[in-house]
Amino acid sequence: MTATLDQSSPARTLVEGWLQRFDQALTAGDARAAADLFADDCYWRDLISFTWNIKTMEGRDAIAAMLEATLDHVRPGNWTITEGEEPAGADGVTEAWIEFETAVGRGRGQLRLKGDGDDARAWTLLTTLYELKGHEEPARGRRPMGAEHGANRERETWAEKRDREARELGYAKQPDVLIIGGGQGGVALGARLRQLGVPTIIVDKHPRPGDQWRNRYKSLCLHDPVWYDHLPYIKFPENWPVFAPKDKIADWLESYARIMELNYWSSTEAKSATYDEATGEWTVTVEREGQPVVLRPKQLVFATGMSGKANLPNFPGMDTFRGDQHHSSAHPGPDAYQGKKCVVVGSNNSAFDICGALWENGADVTMVQRSSTHIVRSDSLMEIGLGALYSEEAVASGMTTEKADLTFASLPYRILHEFQIPAYEAMAERDRDFYLRLEKSGFLHDWGDDGSGLFMKYLRRGSGYYIDVGAADLVANGDVKLVRGQVDHLTENSVVLEDGTELEADLVVYATGYGSMNGWVADLISPEAADQLGKVWGLGSDTTKDPGPWEGEQRNMWKPTQVPALWMHGGNLHQSRHYSLYLALQLKARSVGIPTPVYGLQEVHHTK
Amino acid sequence: MTATLDQSSPARTLVEGWLQRFDQALTAGDARAAADLFADDCYWRDLISFTWNIKTMEGRDAIAAMLEATLDHVRPGNWTITEGEEPAGADGVTEAWIEFETAVGRGRGQLRLKGDGDDARAWTLLTTLYELKGHEEPARGRRPMGAEHGANRERETWAEKRDREARELGYAKQPDVLIIGGGQGGVALGARLRQLGVPTIIVDKHPRPGDQWRNRYKSLCLHDPVWYDHLPYIKFPENWPVFAPKDKIADWLESYARIMELNYWSSTEAKSATYDEATGEWTVTVEREGQPVVLRPKQLVFATGMSGKANLPNFPGMDTFRGDQHHSSAHPGPDAYQGKKCVVVGSNNSAFDICGALWENGADVTMVQRSSTHIVRSDSLMEIGLGALYSEEAVASGMTTEKADLTFASLPYRILHEFQIPAYEAMAERDRDFYLRLEKSGFLHDWGDDGSGLFMKYLRRGSGYYIDVGAADLVANGDVKLVRGQVDHLTENSVVLEDGTELEADLVVYATGYGSMNGWVADLISPEAADQLGKVWGLGSDTTKDPGPWEGEQRNMWKPTQVPALWMHGGNLHQSRHYSLYLALQLKARSVGIPTPVYGLQEVHHTK
Repeated sequence: MTATLDQSSPARTLVEGWLQRFDQALTAGDARAAADLFADDCYWRDLISFTWNIKTMEGRDAIAAMLEATLDHVRPGNWTITEGEEPAGADGVTEAWIEFETAVGRGRGQLRLKGDGDDARAWTLLTTLYELKGHEEPARGRRPMGAEHGANRERETWAEKRDREARELGYAKQPDVLIIGGGQGGVALGARLRQLGVPTIIVDKHPRPGDQWRNRYKSLCLHDPVWYDHLPYIKFPENWPVFAPKDKIADWLESYARIMELNYWSSTEAKSATYDEATGEWTVTVEREGQPVVLRPKQLVFATGMSGKANLPNFPGMDTFRGDQHHSSAHPGPDAYQGKKCVVVGSNNSAFDICGALWENGADVTMVQRSSTHIVRSDSLMEIGLGALYSEEAVASGMTTEKADLTFASLPYRILHEFQIPAYEAMAERDRDFYLRLEKSGFLHDWGDDGSGLFMKYLRRGSGYYIDVGAADLVANGDVKLVRGQVDHLTENSVVLEDGTELEADLVVYATGYGSMNGWVADLISPEAADQLGKVWGLGSDTTKDPGPWEGEQRNMWKPTQVPALWMHGGNLHQSRHYSLYLALQLKARSVGIPTPVYGLQEVHHTK
Repeated sequence: MTATLDQSSPARTLVEGWLQRFDQALTAGDARAAADLFADDCYWRDLISFTWNIKTMEGRDAIAAMLEATLDHVRPGNWTITEGEEPAGADGVTEAWIEFETAVGRGRGQLRLKGDGDDARAWTLLTTLYELKGHEEPARGRRPMGAEHGANRERETWAEKRDREARELGYAKQPDVLIIGGGQGGVALGARLRQLGVPTIIVDKHPRPGDQWRNRYKSLCLHDPVWYDHLPYIKFPENWPVFAPKDKIADWLESYARIMELNYWSSTEAKSATYDEATGEWTVTVEREGQPVVLRPKQLVFATGMSGKANLPNFPGMDTFRGDQHHSSAHPGPDAYQGKKCVVVGSNNSAFDICGALWENGADVTMVQRSSTHIVRSDSLMEIGLGALYSEEAVASGMTTEKADLTFASLPYRILHEFQIPAYEAMAERDRDFYLRLEKSGFLHDWGDDGSGLFMKYLRRGSGYYIDVGAADLVANGDVKLVRGQVDHLTENSVVLEDGTELEADLVVYATGYGSMNGWVADLISPEAADQLGKVWGLGSDTTKDPGPWEGEQRNMWKPTQVPALWMHGGNLHQSRHYSLYLALQLKARSVGIPTPVYGLQEVHHTK
């Protein structure tokens, strides 16, 4: 039998005391006093609740400066411990889930204290806005009635209303927001904006929602497990596969777009976009099923894939090569290449996936490794990397997706690698034999510049790794041949490396990665706008392919950019789910005229 | 702060003691001793765990007889209190959620004890089977991996496998189960059978899943609120309307059929069916998109709607009437009848819905009330009738859909009306003014033979009521004209009542209800099979339109019938969800050869 005991546990008392002192300092407008409640080594990460930005303040001075600039209009208050979430201490750190309010919204967050009694100081603080006052989502107790009871000769049914909206929006009536790209990022954001009542159109060039996945190679399954992949509002059911096959996730996205009542324009390509600062309006020309339509949204969101545009190399001889050649993103799959000689240039995720599928289809496959790659086995990553937050065990122990997302968000990027390194050390130990075999095959393997592994590589550069679902063994055992070196040129029927090695080829696949998302901006808006926006993705960690200076957050993602009314959205399913909330609230606030003074707008240090 | 206290609460001790004595008696094979642990006035409702039937044993003798017949093969044991569910006592009754096992499966149930200490006796016991050992559903910890890691030249992808299944099933490979009708009943059962790995085809005459709802009149919304309406596996999201508009529920069903990977044959009509006892196989001829296909399932399920076939009356003069006339089920909606004179014969749900829609469209509408009708207002029904189990408040207090369903199932039909009467008395009080207005208009209103209201009418006869979503006021205030009496005949342009009243009419709608589901059986199989099956639905309550003798359960629904390998399925969304589990387990057991000795197969007392 469980019963409620006296509520004054030591951890609770500690947190309550700190929140009280914090609240007093904030209410008094004393930024310095509030900052002094933080430890020497401290981080305050804010997702739009104080800064209308996604920003981590590192150290007391940065915190004080942010508060100086924001306290007057944010007017935070009502700091409480989240109901049902008991603060707990371990290893000298006391953790608590907290709630608070601002002048315009309601927030929640997470607090980690070090020290005891009145000396307790905050080590990390996460603050997030989850809803705007007066613009709460129509869910649970606020859900719509659906039926309009009573007799009404002017009645418009749900279907009639939806039909009218679909007919008018983009023609008689302009959307507030235009989202380019209808993959998981686009539909997750579209679903949130629909719930917030922001008129939105999603355009996508494919004929059907989900085609972004359907059109990829046939053996593809998600590399992240189901618990990490939920979309907002409708969770995958309990029978959903751990790693969903691509056609199944495609069907889900198609159903989701319909059920969530998104205005999703299929077979629609965006052709050009210009922004008029005077009217605060974009002019975007799209081609919808072959017909040009001019849209005039207030806000423009790119959800075109965080990978950006394909990097096609420019090797001498490519113009004379007589076989098939294409970038990995254009590879049609293995069906036409049974018994053919295939050379895959590259050694990251796409390269392995394509090598594996070609081999399975009976091709003669050679992988050309040009630089070191980090490989982790899918099951090890799932257990050691994600298990505590995203797993069946986590669910059984009461972990919700939303709580897992906030826990993850609470770890400052500056120190995130420190939490990651031990996990990858454990994977190295667990899969020692596998790595030995791989190295014996001549494969050049790394664990990231600082040994922090896959997730940091993903956050820093979005490349340089493979989540092994089986193809690494093909390389290790020689079924897929491995050659190391740089490509020098192509002949009519071969790839020649700098060391003179000649690889006969009927097919060459360039698994040579992707550029930054601002490449899309250059194409659609202008090269100047792309430069003004700057590089997208990366933390400024000063590691390989992620040049400094330190940004503290993902460059340009889900937050205001140097280009007015332009937003970058996407990432994996986890990020599409989690950050779509904050992007949707930023767009909603602008849509209804709630002031959104941005604190600490990022500067542009790199254009590509 | 919450903490686990000593687990020996008085209620827990009481239940543990009773379960121990019960287990001892059952393990000793002593049916009489087990029955003696029940009170004088007692009910044991079993959903297939002991009886492979849906059956309520009333009184100790009935319980002893059932145990005598079943204990040897059921071999029940491991009776425990459900983890996390604390037994609680109130008003002299101690309630507990329990778990148990049988030789072939795992069960759960609910126990209500009266009395104290060793004298505690069971008043009600619900036992249900929820899974078969060795045939557990692939959910949560058992969910499929999706990705097949490793390299495999024989790999068949998810999409290839689904395509192959869709191509072969019904042609190269026969389904175990054929479900006729793809509304909520058919898809809920289909989804469960898919999870249990039973090859199943659903056939439906409409072009798309959901058309069963789409094709109905345009203002229709569900009359039951969302919390009552969830399907298995995928719950409606938190933003789902309280009363879902018909096109929205249609879209959901269409997505559901796809996401749950059902073999759903649209545009397919069943033409004839015969059963061969020797081979244990049905021969069912269907026409799929115009092409005949012969299916040979082992089990045949009718999910054609619990309302059965339309009752079209046979009034003199119908053949000479020059206007439009049709049964309510064939009514195309109000669009063609603006400004027209419309007579609706009947005064139950369909009649009110159609009168309301016609009036909203500007028709001149008269309702002909032939007998008394029970009306409850939708919001009162929602709050007073369902609120404790199915509401936002219930969800907030921790009530799950599954627990609500079992709680509901735990109340024996014999005494269910006693629980219902006070709720309807409260509604009469709450809506007193409404009922006064209605009576003043001349409307003949009742609360059921014994004042037990709508839900008992639904269970007993499936008719005789209207859930008011607004049209009752149209009758009360005279916007829809009300005439009471019996139809005598039709002329070329009017309906004439027995008292001579003549109602001019451009349209006559016969909202005259439906026959029993076995009417479909007569059409598809044979009139003899329909008679062998007998009347479907009703409790044998000996109230209006539900003749005795007392059955104790819904006639012929979700359980074995007198016709081998023939099953009736359906009901509202709640029943389709809840009872589809037990029907699916019955079909699964037969599919894999688990013995299913049926205890107490119902007799047939009525053929229509």
